Amino acid sequence: MCVGESVTRLDAYEKVTGRAKYTGDLIERGVLCARLLRSTIANGRVLRIETAGALEIEGVVKIVTCFDVPDIAFATAGHPWSEDPSHQDVADRRLLNARVRLYGDEIAAVIARDEIAAARALRAIRVEYAEEPPALTCADAIKAAASGAAPIHEECPDNILQRGLIEDGSVEEAVREEGLIRCEGTYTTPIVQHCHLENVISYAYMEAGRIVIVSSTQIPHIVRRICAQALGIEWGRVRVIKPYVGGGFGNKQDALYEPLNAFLTMQVGGRPVKLELSREEVFAATRVRHAETIRINGYLRPDGRLVAREYTAYSNQGAYASHGHSIASKGVNVFRQLYRDEKARRAETYTVYTNTATAGAMRGYGTPQAVFAVESHIEDMARKINMDPIEFRLKNLMPVGYQDPFSKNILRYDAFGACIAEGKKAIGWDEKRREYQNERGAVRRGVGIALFWYNTAVWPVSVELSSCRMVLNEDGSVQLQLGETEIGQGADTVFAQMAAQTLNLPLEKVHVVSTQDTDVSPFGSGAYGSRQSYVGGMAVHKTALLLKQKICAAAARRTGTPEDALDLRAGLIVRAEDGEPLLPLCELATGICYNTEHAEHLTAEASAQAKSNAYSFGCTFAEVEADIALAKVRLVQMVNVHDCGAVLNPKLAEGQVHG
Amino acid sequence: MCVGESVTRLDAYEKVTGRAKYTGDLIERGVLCARLLRSTIANGRVLRIETAGALEIEGVVKIVTCFDVPDIAFATAGHPWSEDPSHQDVADRRLLNARVRLYGDEIAAVIARDEIAAARALRAIRVEYAEEPPALTCADAIKAAASGAAPIHEECPDNILQRGLIEDGSVEEAVREEGLIRCEGTYTTPIVQHCHLENVISYAYMEAGRIVIVSSTQIPHIVRRICAQALGIEWGRVRVIKPYVGGGFGNKQDALYEPLNAFLTMQVGGRPVKLELSREEVFAATRVRHAETIRINGYLRPDGRLVAREYTAYSNQGAYASHGHSIASKGVNVFRQLYRDEKARRAETYTVYTNTATAGAMRGYGTPQAVFAVESHIEDMARKINMDPIEFRLKNLMPVGYQDPFSKNILRYDAFGACIAEGKKAIGWDEKRREYQNERGAVRRGVGIALFWYNTAVWPVSVELSSCRMVLNEDGSVQLQLGETEIGQGADTVFAQMAAQTLNLPLEKVHVVSTQDTDVSPFGSGAYGSRQSYVGGMAVHKTALLLKQKICAAAARRTGTPEDALDLRAGLIVRAEDGEPLLPLCELATGICYNTEHAEHLTAEASAQAKSNAYSFGCTFAEVEADIALAKVRLVQMVNVHDCGAVLNPKLAEGQVHG
Repeated sequence: MCVGESVTRLDAYEKVTGRAKYTGDLIERGVLCARLLRSTIANGRVLRIETAGALEIEGVVKIVTCFDVPDIAFATAGHPWSEDPSHQDVADRRLLNARVRLYGDEIAAVIARDEIAAARALRAIRVEYAEEPPALTCADAIKAAASGAAPIHEECPDNILQRGLIEDGSVEEAVREEGLIRCEGTYTTPIVQHCHLENVISYAYMEAGRIVIVSSTQIPHIVRRICAQALGIEWGRVRVIKPYVGGGFGNKQDALYEPLNAFLTMQVGGRPVKLELSREEVFAATRVRHAETIRINGYLRPDGRLVAREYTAYSNQGAYASHGHSIASKGVNVFRQLYRDEKARRAETYTVYTNTATAGAMRGYGTPQAVFAVESHIEDMARKINMDPIEFRLKNLMPVGYQDPFSKNILRYDAFGACIAEGKKAIGWDEKRREYQNERGAVRRGVGIALFWYNTAVWPVSVELSSCRMVLNEDGSVQLQLGETEIGQGADTVFAQMAAQTLNLPLEKVHVVSTQDTDVSPFGSGAYGSRQSYVGGMAVHKTALLLKQKICAAAARRTGTPEDALDLRAGLIVRAEDGEPLLPLCELATGICYNTEHAEHLTAEASAQAKSNAYSFGCTFAEVEADIALAKVRLVQMVNVHDCGAVLNPKLAEGQVHG
Repeated sequence: MCVGESVTRLDAYEKVTGRAKYTGDLIERGVLCARLLRSTIANGRVLRIETAGALEIEGVVKIVTCFDVPDIAFATAGHPWSEDPSHQDVADRRLLNARVRLYGDEIAAVIARDEIAAARALRAIRVEYAEEPPALTCADAIKAAASGAAPIHEECPDNILQRGLIEDGSVEEAVREEGLIRCEGTYTTPIVQHCHLENVISYAYMEAGRIVIVSSTQIPHIVRRICAQALGIEWGRVRVIKPYVGGGFGNKQDALYEPLNAFLTMQVGGRPVKLELSREEVFAATRVRHAETIRINGYLRPDGRLVAREYTAYSNQGAYASHGHSIASKGVNVFRQLYRDEKARRAETYTVYTNTATAGAMRGYGTPQAVFAVESHIEDMARKINMDPIEFRLKNLMPVGYQDPFSKNILRYDAFGACIAEGKKAIGWDEKRREYQNERGAVRRGVGIALFWYNTAVWPVSVELSSCRMVLNEDGSVQLQLGETEIGQGADTVFAQMAAQTLNLPLEKVHVVSTQDTDVSPFGSGAYGSRQSYVGGMAVHKTALLLKQKICAAAARRTGTPEDALDLRAGLIVRAEDGEPLLPLCELATGICYNTEHAEHLTAEASAQAKSNAYSFGCTFAEVEADIALAKVRLVQMVNVHDCGAVLNPKLAEGQVHG
């Protein structure tokens, strides 16, 4: 058995010794450097850009401005392409934008022989703006549009990018019931930046009329498609290469600067151009987690039964659409499904363009904001009726047998009950609740609980496809190639474990091709939505079975034993029935390639399409100490209990929980 | 039609503009430099190497000597591995050799931070030798061994690496016939160096416990195997990457320095190490064409009918075996097959170790030497009986219906007759022969002819296997991946033509993956023996048919038209019957990948094994002017007539003829 063990990550040694190659390590000699000129206003329009002085600076090769880029609107969100236009991402930006929408918007790019010349040129460019007052919050942006101010995007006159409404039953009717207790709360979450260790970086060049982009991205195949769309060229004319990535956490699930980088190399005849952002630029001008304001209204009976709830979320999109249209609605899933309202439920979401940093994907994809609001509100309701928060939750929780109306998945096991029981024991819930119930001093302690629920991937909105290829070497080892990406989470390691297990090979005989190259890598949509182990895992398993079948067919030719009477065990071809060794795999593999009677190169390739989602359930218990006078809170202990299903690699799973 | 057209080479623009990336362009920053210490004697033994002074030089990282390398003998010749030990190449060298066998033999390597430190260190190393007199010719080497001198290789006491004898009938009996005319001649050919523009260069590093070697080689998959054998590690632990190559001509059909380079990176903990040879080193210490001395004895009747011949060749192998064991015997094919001896034929070959540059593969692989000798001898015989050289040749030539006893190929067409007729016309043979027949002045002119015959690849001695993979992009274009190598001859271009033709796609929709990477490239044994278009072409064709079938299956799902009623034409799915367009391929390709009902990544991969050889036939006519007094010869005109079969790309074929 290999799956389920905490094997050491395959890339551990390379990364600890600093030998692992990231995009910045691969940049070739003689590369040109690009630096971006960013707007110094948050809302308005560029009237004129004066570049004459900058162009005279030694080392400056070319300057392009927002007036030079193709007039093609494109979307940056990293989703699989959809044949259904209503599921395509919102195309609302150009490579450089004359209509400025945030402080730091890209309005020009300098290409120079080195960073210093580029930086000097940036300072020498003169810009004339027509400035408008910025709207920084959802409320401000809606109000501004209503009072006649120019909308942030012309095609969106009210500044509301997305408006969602889900109604199950009628809340209005439900609340007519007598004796209901009403509990309302408003919960806000802040902007958060991903803070991946490796900043956003890429370089691009042209080769044989095609564009090659090496980038720190989570989604090479998607970035290829978006670059081609942004440039208006055939998708096959773009090639994206993804080396090791120093974290992404969703920020690199956008085609952030690859399209612009591709355009810049085209402007200098295909010479290699590097585009590396500073930390400040990553904070200001890449993506952030959506700040949301969520108001929840609950109606319950005195016995703690939830009857109806209303949920209204305002999600601050910032300047460009990115993933905005799907984040707030993804969060609604939590509201709708975690607890049952006996009669009715209503959820409204508003995703609003503002003149702040663009919000995009980040771990949990809208779920953390919704969980925070829903769980805070559940806690508030439990207190209002003076009920134990666990008892209150269990009374209203998603029951065993519950079916998600959207994805059709069914909760088949009392995952929440099991997690809560484990967590209570681990933190000493009953004892501590008793001990702390009468805290009255300046410094008080307490324990609390929150639940979560999350479903993975983009199915059934978009396709969930993953492909895998395995190449048998002459020594019986295999290369494992996927389109799915290692971005620091350990994907390469668990995929190798899966391959080793199905092929019954020692793990060290599986060589993972960690770099994705859209020219040769099997297709995979990449690292997002906790999809890879689930969807990619199916592809690995399917491909390994196919390779195994081909190996057994070759072994049958060599041993005379029928194919279906053979099996692979620990690098040996054995008789399946009794495990009798017949032939070392290494000997067979050499023979397959060099036998003069019948030679072939043994490889296997397969696509797997997922038409279901993986679910996870869990709870968090926390013990905190509050200094009432100083308004200081200290976390004393935290217990996380996750029902992850079968754990592929406990050490890596633990890392995910810490994350 | 695409095959048969002189389409522009795919890499023309990249190469003309200097943008194409060769090994030297890819070497990463911070690479360590290795330089080799070469023996200053041609024969003998290293007694001691003193490195203390050299190690004190600033920038020197490590010095390894012939006393530090593993005691593993390995072969460098670039043939496919053979399961039959009698067909395996001769393993007669270590990574560095204490037993010195040529002037310039590698005895130590310096690894330093830069070339200057490495060069200084080389000068500071002190070596003590026990010197022996060198043997530079075959005769000297045989004589030296016979008179008790230490053999050049211990395991070869008489210095004769290979001894071949082929007898068809008994020459002794045949020559008893009365009235035969005897004609003897001895013909010598010199050492020739390949003179590829790009010197021998590689760099190597370690990644995740494996060795990666980027090298200018003709044979990446074979180099991988040889490196592993030389280091005594599993073959799958080595990865070889081949970028563009600036010519090889057979010299890079040896694993020249990749095994040593792999060893050197292991000595510095896997840090990248570059090993680049100077032109002088390439001349002295890589490979050359075998100098041969060939004596032929012919017996013929006065009417010009050949009755019997004897052929004795001495081939100067130089210091190490390389391809030596197979070159001289490959040449014998020409002697045996080009002309028929009515009664008997005998060929003896001796390949002899000497203390000169190692001889290996070079264009024609022993055939040019043999053709030169055989054709000179034919000419001498024709003169001796005063017969027209063409008439004499036609009288004795391989007839239509002739079957090669070794490969079983049959001459099905009067290729020689056709070529000679064309050539005679082009050079004005009859007129010029008449005009020049009585030249008597100091400067005289004449016209002459020589024939040639060549068969490709290594079948049936070893396996001839080639694999191909095609990846369908969402825009309907494809990537074409092979293990076969572009080394300047235009292989990428003709493979793309073949793929475009079978898939009925415009050529610009076929994107060739020019770089081979043994981790992901389909298996191919590489560029040698004029095999690639023939063997690789089968793989391309087979794979394209497979891809086409998969595309039609997907189109059937989408159009409802049965799969076998569909065809691909010019980027459209059409009804096969009448060419009615049903669906653009680009639309289908996008749908294949993103359809939520049925999605897959469409690729195709296939191996083709060749069990026959391609043959070529031809002749060369030359008009020359000889200044008798000055012993100067001037070429006035040359006409080459080749029967190449179906010409894939006339412009590239012409390039081959010039070569």
